[in-house]
Amino acid sequence: MIDKVVGSIEEAVGRIPDGASIAVGGFGGAGFPAELVDALSRTDRTGLHIIANGGGGDGYARLAAEHRVRKLSMGFPFGGSWNAEVFSGRIEVEVLPQGTLSERLRAGGAGIAAFYTPTSVGTAISDGTFPKRFDAEGNPIEFVEAKEIREFDGRSYVLERGLRPDFGFVKASKADRLGNLYFRLTSRNFNPSVAMAARCTIVQAQEIVEPGDLDPNEVHVPAVFVDVIVGVPVEAELPRPPRRRSSRVADVDGAPEPIGFSREQLARNIGRDIGEGWFVNLGLGIPLLAANYVGPEKNVTMHMENGLLGAGGSPEVPDPDLTDAGGQPVALRTGASIFDSALSFAIVRAGYLDLTVLGGLQVSAGGDLANWYMPRGQTGVGGAMDLVRGAKRVWVAMEHTDRDGNPKILNECTFTPTGVGVVQRIYTELGVFSLEDGTLELIEVAPGVSVDYIRARTEAPFTVREGADADP
Amino acid sequence: MIDKVVGSIEEAVGRIPDGASIAVGGFGGAGFPAELVDALSRTDRTGLHIIANGGGGDGYARLAAEHRVRKLSMGFPFGGSWNAEVFSGRIEVEVLPQGTLSERLRAGGAGIAAFYTPTSVGTAISDGTFPKRFDAEGNPIEFVEAKEIREFDGRSYVLERGLRPDFGFVKASKADRLGNLYFRLTSRNFNPSVAMAARCTIVQAQEIVEPGDLDPNEVHVPAVFVDVIVGVPVEAELPRPPRRRSSRVADVDGAPEPIGFSREQLARNIGRDIGEGWFVNLGLGIPLLAANYVGPEKNVTMHMENGLLGAGGSPEVPDPDLTDAGGQPVALRTGASIFDSALSFAIVRAGYLDLTVLGGLQVSAGGDLANWYMPRGQTGVGGAMDLVRGAKRVWVAMEHTDRDGNPKILNECTFTPTGVGVVQRIYTELGVFSLEDGTLELIEVAPGVSVDYIRARTEAPFTVREGADADP
Repeated sequence: MIDKVVGSIEEAVGRIPDGASIAVGGFGGAGFPAELVDALSRTDRTGLHIIANGGGGDGYARLAAEHRVRKLSMGFPFGGSWNAEVFSGRIEVEVLPQGTLSERLRAGGAGIAAFYTPTSVGTAISDGTFPKRFDAEGNPIEFVEAKEIREFDGRSYVLERGLRPDFGFVKASKADRLGNLYFRLTSRNFNPSVAMAARCTIVQAQEIVEPGDLDPNEVHVPAVFVDVIVGVPVEAELPRPPRRRSSRVADVDGAPEPIGFSREQLARNIGRDIGEGWFVNLGLGIPLLAANYVGPEKNVTMHMENGLLGAGGSPEVPDPDLTDAGGQPVALRTGASIFDSALSFAIVRAGYLDLTVLGGLQVSAGGDLANWYMPRGQTGVGGAMDLVRGAKRVWVAMEHTDRDGNPKILNECTFTPTGVGVVQRIYTELGVFSLEDGTLELIEVAPGVSVDYIRARTEAPFTVREGADADP
Repeated sequence: MIDKVVGSIEEAVGRIPDGASIAVGGFGGAGFPAELVDALSRTDRTGLHIIANGGGGDGYARLAAEHRVRKLSMGFPFGGSWNAEVFSGRIEVEVLPQGTLSERLRAGGAGIAAFYTPTSVGTAISDGTFPKRFDAEGNPIEFVEAKEIREFDGRSYVLERGLRPDFGFVKASKADRLGNLYFRLTSRNFNPSVAMAARCTIVQAQEIVEPGDLDPNEVHVPAVFVDVIVGVPVEAELPRPPRRRSSRVADVDGAPEPIGFSREQLARNIGRDIGEGWFVNLGLGIPLLAANYVGPEKNVTMHMENGLLGAGGSPEVPDPDLTDAGGQPVALRTGASIFDSALSFAIVRAGYLDLTVLGGLQVSAGGDLANWYMPRGQTGVGGAMDLVRGAKRVWVAMEHTDRDGNPKILNECTFTPTGVGVVQRIYTELGVFSLEDGTLELIEVAPGVSVDYIRARTEAPFTVREGADADP
């Protein structure tokens, strides 16, 4: 037997040279190989390129503080310990929509040089206008390259390259000594794609078992993709990075004005409009609240970007390996299924979701949505760009105005768009708008609110559906 | 609960209209939804487009005999009941290398419009010279379109489109009523990719279980991809199509001349040269025999195209759900793993196999291999085109001359190539050749054979390594 298990985590990361590119699994705390990142941070390796969904935790903080990372390719490259590096010009940034990240890794690991994805069409991620380097004032000083756009069957797609990082960090629930891996629940997420893509895959396993102990039919990553294994039992794990809602800007706006629909009523409006049997992805914040207002008789299935169909609200007993797309503990409905991030975004991109509801910073009269980035208020793109191009319906739930009282429904978005011409409905505390055939129409007015009141807080012109302001 | 189970197989296939495209899972008999194909054949639907690895069994035979198929997209479109249709001009043929078939389905099911694969570069499949329609004399009368070739990092790739067939036929070991699927052993193969790609996926399940009976962590296909389920218990299944070695032409050549290495010695030569710890794919025929001559101390892992690492020879008790790439029952080594066809060819294309050994019809001095098609001796391409472009080493095992005594090691191949400049070694009953830097070198001569004897049977000029003809 070729035993891939090494004796220490220092040995596991010891072969990584300066300048290496390293893809890292995990989605929030679940499946995140924190101990490998931590061990790497205790070496003197520098000039690193980190490819991952996000970058929280102490190991990354040390790498950032010691200026040892040259480039971040991430869904969430902003925030926390990275900002000082990013907004100083020291780090190059590549913003990767989650589905593009997982698919680029999976493609690299499948020998596919490049592929055409609908995600990010019409946005700064693909048209060359997003910064890749900022100065100390946060001003862009270099920009990403524009990507090739090509039409297939009348729809536009972006050419993305397969990724082959030098190393991959993976956290597995179980590994046999040959390198076959098994992941519990949503700890799978990006880990299989990382293992496929990396030229040298280093695994930290909560449990190391003997060959034959894993059912061949239930191996999630075959041994051929794995090079080095180190045991890090649960009891030796560092505290996981705090599980918190990633702060999409829409969620940190001020509280809604005390008129119109309450947050709960707004969520109820969405829940009421969700159709029977739909597969639905709800963004963090108000959208996720809508899940509380979809009765079981509707047979709606909730999708989570991290690799879950059949999410079912807060669990009685939290399991760190079972979290939603915001990193919060989640329960499973009967009939749920779990898969990796590549499959999760396959479901998104291929149009299998009937609906996504997202938070919004701005929506334009033409259906453009901006919800992931504004200068100095950076968060990260997450799965939003994949969702707006993939789901059959895109609804936005947001406060009607920003915390300064400025309209968020505009003639044109001033923030960089998440998607262009994608929004079909807008739910705010003041009412509900429909966007069809380029027409913005107010279809429901909150009790106690006048159409004039809404007009005064809406930049874009809109029509009013007959009966929209009838009390429900 | 939205219960997707219907009461009869007639109802399951009843919604298929004339002209539909239908992707069908299965690899040989394992995972092949024979009863769905049979039920389709009992309808009057016509003008069908079948997308599958192969097309054996009674249902296809009826569809062919009744001229109800307009197009075949297959790894093995020739042979059996199809030849009368194909070689009459009635059916359009699209030859799909197995890895391209699985990846095109997976891409379609992942919202990827198109991708660049290394498979089929330099061959008639991509350069527009392979026929898509033949006349009654077997002469080509129409040709496939040339595909776009593009270079990435100095290597050439072919642009292939994602597939979205109208319908998918899938055979699952277990399905819950919501549509979550589980596959036993190598019955998984193409089925998950078919389910992802098809706009309407129809599943025949050996066992129907209640939601919650499948472990969410071990669902192979989530319910979102499934539309209709019909129960076909094992005891109600038709006899599976005869499991036979698919007849690559190289295997039906005449017996080796009674001089030089025997088949067993030839296989032993290959086994001897396989390196320690290698991941190896052995083609049918002589190559597969080599597995018998690789000692366990070498820790070699055998890969099978249908989705298996750790194949281990003939089993004590055959299981129809556990077969090798030739459809024969196979055993599992300790530490084996099973996966779907898309992942199987990801392993191939991304360069994770250290070696493939294939049969050959012809090999040129420049390392071109022809092993899948010759006029009137058509078989099918299977996984060979993926393997020759993906594996780190490509060795060929074949008889030195064809059954008429003509050389098979040529200046140029006259048959359509499987791959160009890909072969590094040739094993025949007369000796072993190395092909490096464009030089064909005889490195080992069989006992009792002279170099002159070999030269007389080899068209391409070759050098002789010092000591090559020393008795071993």
